[in-house]
Amino acid sequence: MNPIIDAILSRRSIRKFTQEPVGEKEIETILNCGIWAPSGLNNQPCRYIVVQERSNIVDIADCTHYSDVVLNAPVLIAVFLDKDAMYNYVKDVQAAGASIQNMLLSCHSMGLGAVWLGEILNQKEKVNSILEAPDSFELMAVLAIGHPKGDKRTSSRRALGEMAFNEMYGSNWVERGEEN
Amino acid sequence: MNPIIDAILSRRSIRKFTQEPVGEKEIETILNCGIWAPSGLNNQPCRYIVVQERSNIVDIADCTHYSDVVLNAPVLIAVFLDKDAMYNYVKDVQAAGASIQNMLLSCHSMGLGAVWLGEILNQKEKVNSILEAPDSFELMAVLAIGHPKGDKRTSSRRALGEMAFNEMYGSNWVERGEEN
Repeated sequence: MNPIIDAILSRRSIRKFTQEPVGEKEIETILNCGIWAPSGLNNQPCRYIVVQERSNIVDIADCTHYSDVVLNAPVLIAVFLDKDAMYNYVKDVQAAGASIQNMLLSCHSMGLGAVWLGEILNQKEKVNSILEAPDSFELMAVLAIGHPKGDKRTSSRRALGEMAFNEMYGSNWVERGEEN
Repeated sequence: MNPIIDAILSRRSIRKFTQEPVGEKEIETILNCGIWAPSGLNNQPCRYIVVQERSNIVDIADCTHYSDVVLNAPVLIAVFLDKDAMYNYVKDVQAAGASIQNMLLSCHSMGLGAVWLGEILNQKEKVNSILEAPDSFELMAVLAIGHPKGDKRTSSRRALGEMAFNEMYGSNWVERGEEN
């Protein structure tokens, strides 16, 4: 299995972090991976706010039921769609997902842990207010990032044959065996 | 630079393919990478139809202005959201974007080329009809995949400092230099 596929299959959400700081170069690498995701017509609709100041982290923790995860993280990256850069809402939201996935994979590849927080969207206006983001910025997610602490998380997926089809819907994919 | 970050930064859309077939194991690896993307509450809302039969490829080519790309590709993967598995439209569309990005990266890592086709959504009902997909399947994209032909594509991104901010909106990210 090549290292890219291994990273894709082995990445898990990490919700507990040590207090070791994340380097500025690592943060920049994560951001660069984020912006190099594809987008429709290469319109690059995503915007990113990196949050490391304790007072801001505390305020953002107050916007989610998962405040313990946020309070524990040395770095947050809030990901927005800039409505002024959008051209198609569905495709732009997909682009945000692709950008987030690039950032999660880059964290994993550098030995960092990260989790994609979505529940915080319930209080997205409050997050915008804390980060002084304009109304044209629609919050897509907050990533909590740090050095992983504790055991590796496990996860699961439904069988491929339940989610993939061969040639036509109804003709379920028959698994060929171990990938690569 | 580690190989994952290198793959993320060096991947480009590939629109021309040789007629060399893509192996079934490679297709399965691509699908596995797709399903291992994260999704909100791990609801796994994406469904995939792999298309290799010539008559189906010809029919799908008829659903897009980019028919030359589709006709040229030995494999298509149509990606859908299954509305019966959805819990939040925005988060599920993001999950589709993450899944697509995993598949694009896996193709790149195996020396395959791929392109994310979005314009075909203009005729998504027709694609559903060709692939006999139920109304509960909402087309998110079609990936055209094959062995790359011709020169490597280039692309560009806006400067990081135009898209990322430090701590607050308005405080533009100052680039630290080469990533990693």
